Amino acid sequence: MNIEQLILHLDTLNIDYKFLNQPPKCNLLTISSLKKASEQDVVYVLDKKHVSDLHGRTPGLVIGNEDIFDEYSGFSLVVAKPRYVFAKLAQELYKETSSSFIHSSSVVAENAQLSSNVTCEPGVFISHHTQVGEDTFIHANASIFENVKIGKNCVIGANVVIHKNCEIGDNCHIEAGTVIGGDGFGWEMYEGQWHKVPQVGAVKIGNYVSIGNNCCIDRGALEDTMIEDYCIIDNLVHIAHNVVIGKGSAVAGQVGFAGTSKLGQYNTVAGQAGFAGHLTTADQCHFLAKSGVTHSISEAGVYAGFPAQPHKEWQKENIRIRKLNKLATDLKLIQKQIQSLQSAKDEN
Amino acid sequence: MNIEQLILHLDTLNIDYKFLNQPPKCNLLTISSLKKASEQDVVYVLDKKHVSDLHGRTPGLVIGNEDIFDEYSGFSLVVAKPRYVFAKLAQELYKETSSSFIHSSSVVAENAQLSSNVTCEPGVFISHHTQVGEDTFIHANASIFENVKIGKNCVIGANVVIHKNCEIGDNCHIEAGTVIGGDGFGWEMYEGQWHKVPQVGAVKIGNYVSIGNNCCIDRGALEDTMIEDYCIIDNLVHIAHNVVIGKGSAVAGQVGFAGTSKLGQYNTVAGQAGFAGHLTTADQCHFLAKSGVTHSISEAGVYAGFPAQPHKEWQKENIRIRKLNKLATDLKLIQKQIQSLQSAKDEN
Amino acid sequence: MNIEQLILHLDTLNIDYKFLNQPPKCNLLTISSLKKASEQDVVYVLDKKHVSDLHGRTPGLVIGNEDIFDEYSGFSLVVAKPRYVFAKLAQELYKETSSSFIHSSSVVAENAQLSSNVTCEPGVFISHHTQVGEDTFIHANASIFENVKIGKNCVIGANVVIHKNCEIGDNCHIEAGTVIGGDGFGWEMYEGQWHKVPQVGAVKIGNYVSIGNNCCIDRGALEDTMIEDYCIIDNLVHIAHNVVIGKGSAVAGQVGFAGTSKLGQYNTVAGQAGFAGHLTTADQCHFLAKSGVTHSISEAGVYAGFPAQPHKEWQKENIRIRKLNKLATDLKLIQKQIQSLQSAKDEN
Repeated sequence: MNIEQLILHLDTLNIDYKFLNQPPKCNLLTISSLKKASEQDVVYVLDKKHVSDLHGRTPGLVIGNEDIFDEYSGFSLVVAKPRYVFAKLAQELYKETSSSFIHSSSVVAENAQLSSNVTCEPGVFISHHTQVGEDTFIHANASIFENVKIGKNCVIGANVVIHKNCEIGDNCHIEAGTVIGGDGFGWEMYEGQWHKVPQVGAVKIGNYVSIGNNCCIDRGALEDTMIEDYCIIDNLVHIAHNVVIGKGSAVAGQVGFAGTSKLGQYNTVAGQAGFAGHLTTADQCHFLAKSGVTHSISEAGVYAGFPAQPHKEWQKENIRIRKLNKLATDLKLIQKQIQSLQSAKDEN
Repeated sequence: MNIEQLILHLDTLNIDYKFLNQPPKCNLLTISSLKKASEQDVVYVLDKKHVSDLHGRTPGLVIGNEDIFDEYSGFSLVVAKPRYVFAKLAQELYKETSSSFIHSSSVVAENAQLSSNVTCEPGVFISHHTQVGEDTFIHANASIFENVKIGKNCVIGANVVIHKNCEIGDNCHIEAGTVIGGDGFGWEMYEGQWHKVPQVGAVKIGNYVSIGNNCCIDRGALEDTMIEDYCIIDNLVHIAHNVVIGKGSAVAGQVGFAGTSKLGQYNTVAGQAGFAGHLTTADQCHFLAKSGVTHSISEAGVYAGFPAQPHKEWQKENIRIRKLNKLATDLKLIQKQIQSLQSAKDEN
Repeated sequence: MNIEQLILHLDTLNIDYKFLNQPPKCNLLTISSLKKASEQDVVYVLDKKHVSDLHGRTPGLVIGNEDIFDEYSGFSLVVAKPRYVFAKLAQELYKETSSSFIHSSSVVAENAQLSSNVTCEPGVFISHHTQVGEDTFIHANASIFENVKIGKNCVIGANVVIHKNCEIGDNCHIEAGTVIGGDGFGWEMYEGQWHKVPQVGAVKIGNYVSIGNNCCIDRGALEDTMIEDYCIIDNLVHIAHNVVIGKGSAVAGQVGFAGTSKLGQYNTVAGQAGFAGHLTTADQCHFLAKSGVTHSISEAGVYAGFPAQPHKEWQKENIRIRKLNKLATDLKLIQKQIQSLQSAKDEN
């Protein structure tokens, strides 16, 4: 990416920006941390104190806020949201292109519909009536079953499994080993034996959704499990049948949702949290790590603990628990004082 | 399924039943939620208040208890256990048949023994001396190693891995990405290095067992890890070496069992619970979500918390913790009162 | 293994040892538990009380400490660390040999470099410029992407995914379904949409590292995620971007590390524990099951609870919580006593 291309790309972002100092002679090719930056690297700085990490190095481009650059004399880009602009430039630098290549060891059903420019790496299996949108890249040994719809410009990771009738929108990324549309855990006990309730809903995933590695998103029992637009989901997350993950929500690693729970829009959920079944959360809720959400949450806010409660309450509770020893000691002292008062009274 | 077939099937269930109102003209083909039911759907109702969800729709068949049907005039089936009967009818409607098809891209060792009517989708690998029972369906890219025994009428999901010498009974379902018979976590530290203790036991899985997606069931160290008949296991569950999961137990998502723990029969374990090693639980124990079971449980009952305790105790404890603030306030008030009593005494 | 081979192998371990009683006539072929031992089995005993588990059986070789053998008359090996010696003998007995076999259904890029004696089972995919060291065994349906380096004498499990540029040292074992080098969870929210920050670091894994089944080890954002020499990691573990797992550490099942956390050397982490991002732990720390580590730990020791604290503190706290009921009862009694004292004073 040379300076002209950089300017063209920045103009597409529709943001205010300005350059400081002289542009480098070589092109911008890669991104880097400050500590390892070289002259073809793009880097970003969020806080003035980190500028010293450059140790005199001059990267190809430093992105930051106005006040970062008082004492830095290299080529710089001043923007309001440096990490966002860094992300967009990096996306451009590392853009992978699909190549309309179906490896000969892939097995694609005759009536599957692959749009132009779809890539299938070795060992991919695509079953009957499945549709794949243009520019979608399917990595090695992925298994995609009957009547699945995958949109445009998606990346399907290696060993991913997508079960029948599931739908994935455009610009989605499903990482390796994730299973979409496994059977929900729906059983009925009768005479000492669990009887399976067939799970005939599907999983519907919106646009611009990203799902990490080795996750499990179960299909709905009768209706569908839904992951709405712009959601991002980390690794090893369990999403049970009929769950709805609201638009723009972010779910960190090893979180679990029991059946028919409904996460609001723009929630964030930190690692190892868990949600009981049949509850809903308001929009803009934030759940701290290891939260155990046992009931519906009707107000936006920050929640923590198990059973989950407002974060500030949880913090106070932790402090109170830490002070239990003092409480017990105080109480013993009081018991002695009362005894002494009692004795005094009795002597009277 | 027409009415004659429905009656034939109900008769196989060996239950009391009766029909109400006129049968529909078209066949029963699918199942549905009440809200989306059409004339070819079978639905079930567990509570009278949900009948209104039909909004005037008339499904092909509504299954429920006697008292559900006071004000409903469509074709109905009255039984004692509506969800059980719904499950059995749905199993019949959605029955998949194996087709004795071994895809040409599968690799099956010459001395492997596949019974009649076994299906292998693309990319399946079956190694030496492995036996697969009749009507078993093996999905794409599953890897089944040496000397494995898989029973009749099983479904082995895509990308499943079954390691050597493991045994799976009849009518089992292992969902996608699950690994059966990985090495147990058996190590010995010596001079700053972990030395692996070879794991030579196997995994033995009974009949009618269902295991979800991306689970890990480790092989035994010297003897076998066992999953007994009729167990159902959800997604992302970790079962370490030498664990025994007792008959008919149900284990929800993201639960973990450390080595040599032994779950009793007909236990239920909710999501994200964990069991320490070398403990046992009684039959008919129920563990709530996120329980941390640190010691053996010798009595049937409901348990919760970490360290796990009887559920009612745990609930009381939570209430006590929530009241800690009041306790501290009360204590401060008492301290003042005592001071005042003390002053009064001193003045005397 | 006959007696001569046994002696040769023991001599390579460079330890003190001596034999007791007469060697068996047949060779040592397998290992076993005490309860099932036969004359070709090697077994070990750590405590005298377990000798009775033999029930009169005479295994081919019993390994133990000096004092175990007072009343046992079979062939025995006396060593200081019986389980270590058992592990090393078992490793020898169950040694698998790679066979320089590349199955015809594997896809290996022309410019990939496979050293001598590499095995690729069916369905393996090895991409461009990837290097695999000698005697390494790659199991079925594993997908190894561009420019990966795998050392000598490694085992790569079935369905494992190793993403581009990652490096794995010598003598490593990556078990089935694990994903090495998935994208870290790096996102920037801007105008209601999450924008991906491309993850361009790699995963660097040292020598003698073992990683269990269905784990996720994410690649670094800008620098690398590191698993140092001699680490052992159990199943379903989540290791986020830029994490460092220090030399010789052991991590049990379902543990999670958030981004840029740094575990010290020779730490042990029990099941379902979690680590917040951007923290470090000292060397020789031990974290109990379900710990939630929210801040850096600067001293070696045993830690537990959430938020994690020294184990002894956590134990005391649990006892204090269990005594909350008594505390509340005591307080009520005190309130009555004060009331009575108050009344007495008022009457005065």
